[in-house]
Parts: sequence; structure tokens; C-alpha cells
Amino acid sequence: MSPTNITMEDIRSAQDRIATFIHRTPILTSNTFNKLVGCELFFKCENFQKVGAFKYRGATNAVSQLGPGEAVNGVATHSSGNHAQALALAAAIKGIPAHIVMPRNAPLSKKEAVAGYGANVIECEPTLEARESTLNQVVKETGASFIHPYNDERIIAGQATCALEIMEKIHDLDVLIAPVGGGGLLSGTALTARYFSPKTRVFGAEPSGADDAFKSVKSGHIIPSVNPQTIADGLLTSLGDKTFPIIQRYVEQILTVDDEVTIKAMKLIWQRMKIIVEPSSAVALAVVMTYTEHFKNQRVAIILSGGNIDFDKIPFR
Amino acid sequence: MSPTNITMEDIRSAQDRIATFIHRTPILTSNTFNKLVGCELFFKCENFQKVGAFKYRGATNAVSQLGPGEAVNGVATHSSGNHAQALALAAAIKGIPAHIVMPRNAPLSKKEAVAGYGANVIECEPTLEARESTLNQVVKETGASFIHPYNDERIIAGQATCALEIMEKIHDLDVLIAPVGGGGLLSGTALTARYFSPKTRVFGAEPSGADDAFKSVKSGHIIPSVNPQTIADGLLTSLGDKTFPIIQRYVEQILTVDDEVTIKAMKLIWQRMKIIVEPSSAVALAVVMTYTEHFKNQRVAIILSGGNIDFDKIPFR
Repeated sequence: MSPTNITMEDIRSAQDRIATFIHRTPILTSNTFNKLVGCELFFKCENFQKVGAFKYRGATNAVSQLGPGEAVNGVATHSSGNHAQALALAAAIKGIPAHIVMPRNAPLSKKEAVAGYGANVIECEPTLEARESTLNQVVKETGASFIHPYNDERIIAGQATCALEIMEKIHDLDVLIAPVGGGGLLSGTALTARYFSPKTRVFGAEPSGADDAFKSVKSGHIIPSVNPQTIADGLLTSLGDKTFPIIQRYVEQILTVDDEVTIKAMKLIWQRMKIIVEPSSAVALAVVMTYTEHFKNQRVAIILSGGNIDFDKIPFR
Repeated sequence: MSPTNITMEDIRSAQDRIATFIHRTPILTSNTFNKLVGCELFFKCENFQKVGAFKYRGATNAVSQLGPGEAVNGVATHSSGNHAQALALAAAIKGIPAHIVMPRNAPLSKKEAVAGYGANVIECEPTLEARESTLNQVVKETGASFIHPYNDERIIAGQATCALEIMEKIHDLDVLIAPVGGGGLLSGTALTARYFSPKTRVFGAEPSGADDAFKSVKSGHIIPSVNPQTIADGLLTSLGDKTFPIIQRYVEQILTVDDEVTIKAMKLIWQRMKIIVEPSSAVALAVVMTYTEHFKNQRVAIILSGGNIDFDKIPFR
């Protein structure tokens, strides 16, 4: 039995559906990095995606699939991260309302960015309970469609298009590595590999201080993320019942790395590639730096998931 | 009378000569920036060039033109900046020695980078006199060819290839803006426009705290840079007798900007384009932000000259 309803055709359709809205991001290579880690690396630059992260793919795919009756009432979500901006922009482009519930203590810059896309920002107390109850309230009042940041098949199929772009450009790929938080990107990536390049092995990259996906796969059921401690603030959430079964079945292994290596990887990317990535992106390179033997002499693609960072929180000088 | 011996053919030959050694860097666009400044911008990303700066073009062109008798003794220069790394790598690729005189107080990271390319680093006191006398000594002892960072026709022709790549990709360009320090990039850019796209107007971008090029053009003779004060540490030097006449004749105007705007421009580029540029690069965007009326609704290319920065000196948070 398939671990998901998402088909090969769903991913192809998602790609067609979002093609005119998203950036087809570049894939960079670097001799310096290849020498450093002893394999051939391909960096898929979703930091150059609209709103600065891959999240715009899924949000656009979800918003594009709303029927006219649903669309008119807009969309809603709770998020303090990239999904908030992604959904806000996707809704703005479609010309429908977006209601974004954000914790009161979210950085002002993030609230302003979301409001800047014309979304309605609703503040709540910084607890999961408050976020969910506020969201429920908003949905009830507005009739907006809740778009979950990852546990939604439209979102997963949208994120899956990133790996599809890689497969179309880079052939004979041995390995594909994506960071894992809630698992939207990783499950989509694994599905794309399964359908379009079954010989490519997919790995999840996770901070050791937020290793709930690692533990979930090991134990065979979803283990929630409790009090995660990592600089990779995009990878704090727990897997969902739509992402976990795909990851469990099609991801070869979740590899965990210490923040220390992630910071080193992030600095290397900034210094040598001259591009800005957020810590969550660097986790995938940190995996290659930590488990070099796993990838020796292989062709390895890494998804650099995003580039949104508060400059007052740069973890190196 | 032409202000230079450098011909159209010299620039074309330089392009052929260095083609296999350099990166053909991408040209990025951004709707956000276009809206912000009211013109159509094209960013030529020399921050992605080898050694992280356009300087590698000129250095490679110069090194490639050495005869066998000269080449065997290697090259020498004094520089604490991007030219040092550029010449070191160009020499290493050609398999000849490089002797780089650097002031004792240059950042350790820069000395290590130059030494990392296999160059011989010679330290001296941090004065122009010491740098020149040490260099003369080195040249006398080794027979190495002195490659000036900008006041050299081979260097100018090499830097000119950057604008040529722009012209080949972007047609009907109204304006081309390059930062100006010693004038190697600006004079090369102006020559390329003159030869290959005479309708394109070329502007020099200069920090108001280091406005010797502005003053030189105004007064009609080279006014040396004395005690320059700017964050743009690549733009501190004076024009040379090979760069000044070209700039005087073919550059429409030198536009000066305050560091405050340069820092704002740099932060915008980091935040919105997700790429790392050094302050000297941001000066060109700062010009567009300062003199918006000059460029209204025009097609404007900006050369982002480099991306080498000490992360402990990021001028914003």
C-alpha cells in the first residue's frame, strides 16, 4: 500500500500549476566544496525562491487549487516563519484574503513582511494552544481555508517540485539531501525521487538538538518535537500524519548534525559561495561534512531551503 | 587622439584569452529593486567571480600575456585587497611564482588566503613607501614582472570583459555603472561601452569620503586620494595615468554617495537578493538610490564588483 495519495501525476500537475508564479531557482556547484568533502555537490538555491524559501512552492500550489467558492473567503494559517510570508504572497497574487496568526513575540520584521504582502496579521499568545484556538476562531469567523504549513497533500506536492527541477537538470544523481522540520520538503523530495529517479537515495538532515524525525523513524511512530534546541529555527516542528509515512517508507535515513557543524557549514556557504542561506539550509551541508564517508565520490544534491535571516542573529563573526 | 592604446580588438582578445579560466558570472534582476528605484536594473554578479571579485579577469589577462622568458620568473605586486588574491591564483593556475607584498597589519585572513594559493607573501610596514620599496626589492631579487592592480593596459582590457559580457546579454542598455577606486574597472567598462554600445552612458560610483576621481575629472588632472574615509575599502586608491584619460573622456559623470546610503544598499542586496556583496559593490546601487531622477525608467546595469568581506565588519545588524 502506498504511504500517500500523492501520485507522480500530482507532482507533475503541481509543477505546471505553479510554473508561472515561482522562480526556477539555479543549481550552483563549487570546486572548493567538492574538494573539501570528497564528493560532487549540487546546490539547489531555494534561498533565491520568492519570499526567500521553498515554502512558496507549496503555498502557491495549495492556493491555486482552491475552488471559486473557497477562494473568495481566503486562506488562513498560523506561522511565524517562511510559510506565513509564502501564503501571504500566494494569496495576494491570487487576489484573495490571507489571515495569518502569529505569536505576539514574533520578530517585528516578520510581522511587517507578512503585513506588507497585504495579509491580515492576527496576534496571539506564544503557545501552540493559543495559536490553534486563535486560528480556529479566525476560520470560523471568515470562512477562510486553513492551509497547514506541511501536513497537507497540496503543500507536499508543491514542495516536491523542487526536487523535480533538480532531476530535470542533474542526471544520475546518487543522493538527494533535504532538511527536515515538519517534513513537507523532505516527504515531497522523497516522493519525487521515488517516482522520477528511483536510484537516487534521499536523506533527511536534522539538527541533533531537534531530532524528533530521527527518533520517529527509529521508533516507527511520530514522536513530537519537545523543547527543541537548535539554531535552525525552521526545523523545530514535529512530523505530521501525511509526511511521516512517506518519510518512513522512502527516506533512506535521517542524519543528525550538531549546530556547531551547521554554523561552520553556513559560514562556508556565505564565504565561499557568496550567497545568504539561513541555518536550516546549512544543516544539509553539515550532514555531508559530518558523514563524509557515506557520500564519498558520489553525486549529491543539497536543497538550500531558504535565505531569510535576521542580521542581528548571524551566528559567526 | 585616443586616450588609450587599448583597442576594441584588445578587449575581444582578452575575452578569448581568459574565457576558460574565469566564471561567466550571472546577471540578476529584481522586481523589488526596480520598483524601489523606478528603473530597470541588471546586476552583474562579479561577487561570484573566482577569488570573489572582478580582479581575477585583469590578473588572468595580464599573466596570460607574459612571454615564456618573463613567466618563468613569476609576477609580483603589492596589495592588501582582491588584486593580491587574484594575481596569486592566476599565477598558480599558470604554474609560475607570485610574490605579494602585503602590509604587516593586513587581516590575517587575507594573508592566509593569498598564501593558500601558493604565493610568497612578503610583509612590510603599512606605508605606501614601504610597500613600493619592498616591491622594488622583490622585483630586483626575483626578476618577477610587476603587475599593477589597475594602471596597466592588460589589466584594464581584462576588466573590460565584464562589461562585454553584459553587452552580449542585455541589449539597449541606457546606463552602465561601475564603482571607481584606481579606475581599472571603470576605464575598462567605459572603453567597452564606447566600442561595443556607444549609446550606453557610463557612470562612475564613488564614496563621497574618497572622491578623488570626482575631483580629478572636475579639475582635469589626477588628484591623489589623501586620507580617504569610507567603508568601501576597495575604493581607496588614486587614479593612474592609464585609467584617468579614459575615464575623463568616456565616463559621463562620477557620482558620489554617502556611506550611509551605501550601507543601506548593501543591506538591501543581502536581504532581498540573498547574495553577499562587499561595500565597494553596494556603492553602485547607492548611486541609483541617491540620483533616482537621473535613471528614471531607464535600463541600468550595475557591476557588483566583489563579495569579499570580513564577517566581523558587517556594517549593519
